[in-house]
Amino acid sequence: MKKIVKVHGNERVDFIQRKGYKIIQNPEVFCFGIDAVLLADFAKVKKKDRVLDIGTGTGIIPILMYARYENESYVGIDIQEDMVEMASRSVSMNNLENHIEMKHMDVKDISNKYESGSFDVVTSNPPYMKGKAGLVNENESKMISRHEIKCSLEDIIKNAAYLLKDRGKLYMIHRPNRLVDIIYLMRKYRLEPKRMQMIHPKEGKSPTMVLIEGIKYANPEIIVEPALYVYNKDGSYTDEIYQIYGSEEED
Amino acid sequence: MKKIVKVHGNERVDFIQRKGYKIIQNPEVFCFGIDAVLLADFAKVKKKDRVLDIGTGTGIIPILMYARYENESYVGIDIQEDMVEMASRSVSMNNLENHIEMKHMDVKDISNKYESGSFDVVTSNPPYMKGKAGLVNENESKMISRHEIKCSLEDIIKNAAYLLKDRGKLYMIHRPNRLVDIIYLMRKYRLEPKRMQMIHPKEGKSPTMVLIEGIKYANPEIIVEPALYVYNKDGSYTDEIYQIYGSEEED
Repeated sequence: MKKIVKVHGNERVDFIQRKGYKIIQNPEVFCFGIDAVLLADFAKVKKKDRVLDIGTGTGIIPILMYARYENESYVGIDIQEDMVEMASRSVSMNNLENHIEMKHMDVKDISNKYESGSFDVVTSNPPYMKGKAGLVNENESKMISRHEIKCSLEDIIKNAAYLLKDRGKLYMIHRPNRLVDIIYLMRKYRLEPKRMQMIHPKEGKSPTMVLIEGIKYANPEIIVEPALYVYNKDGSYTDEIYQIYGSEEED
Repeated sequence: MKKIVKVHGNERVDFIQRKGYKIIQNPEVFCFGIDAVLLADFAKVKKKDRVLDIGTGTGIIPILMYARYENESYVGIDIQEDMVEMASRSVSMNNLENHIEMKHMDVKDISNKYESGSFDVVTSNPPYMKGKAGLVNENESKMISRHEIKCSLEDIIKNAAYLLKDRGKLYMIHRPNRLVDIIYLMRKYRLEPKRMQMIHPKEGKSPTMVLIEGIKYANPEIIVEPALYVYNKDGSYTDEIYQIYGSEEED
């Protein structure tokens, strides 16, 4: 029986360049960008891992990551019910209902819904803006995706620490200007930052994104990776970026 | 009357490439390297600033910095009495006795020697190695310069915070693997990290040094500077490094 997945008029369907998987997006709200692809490349998951994505939005991170690792199970949670509904349709469209589950959930409610230590890995591409900083005319859904309105960075890190088992890993991408908050909070909640990479638009420019891995109860000492550049001086993508996008198709 | 400054047989005198100033060094113990030059370039000092350098060793940081800024006064403290004696001879050799003072002092004793808030800027190029990690056959003086034997990173940051006035600045250079400790401790002692730069040996390599600026009682949000590379692919120094060394002679 052919499965029918609805796509609304304001939505579009894109290929994620991996296993033919597709994603439903609403360009008025949010379309996945390079940050999701970079996070999915930076994060490492094992076959038997149970993974949870906080603030999953379109569900792009679980779908990208599952496409690569085909791990035990992936849960994506989001506070926006209509996003969860849309993400669930993407899961369905890819026939991944047995592997990925999208749930409508407030990150602050996690400890009522899950046992502590029930996940091996947590991923998150959280809102980048602190509180309502720089808030302009945006529709509500866009606003929630971009600003820490519904949950703070501390809510995410604290609850990730709760969810993870001993040696479990949190992978996050964020803005470098929040690096001190990220590092301070990760150590505070015993998710020791162990690996970090700065993403610069091009050489000679400040980084615009930072990738970070925290390991629960790990000893101090972080590895800082070589700087990653998105563009060459002539405006073309760097080899590193081609590799990251390319690996999506090769795996 | 011509001043006579003693130089011992195991010591040598080098120009610091700035204003004809010289420094006495003992190659068996420690000679200043690129880290001192990078720190002196990264740190900013105003004319009226009172500055203190923690773990001053040969006194290279105060002498390099004073050469550039000719600020109010500079104190260098070190726990090694013979280093302080040698650093004092360097001060004397450059006729800087009215501006730079080298003192034999334990960082942990700072609060007994100075009032809180009595400095505008603190600089430090501290021992890089945690405790006795990686300790090999070294003479004691070399060991103290390189390992956190006589004082921990926390001693330095805590006492720098004590010494600084409101909005006073700590400038430090360290190894990137200690970044989490540095950031966590700076925020703990209310020296908010505000600016950071990674120093990589060359493109595609992990950084080997990190420069960081903390400002007392400042609000969160850090600026991460573009990555700085020491060598080009062909092994020659990068333009940025030439500029940093070059500015020493031009100013």
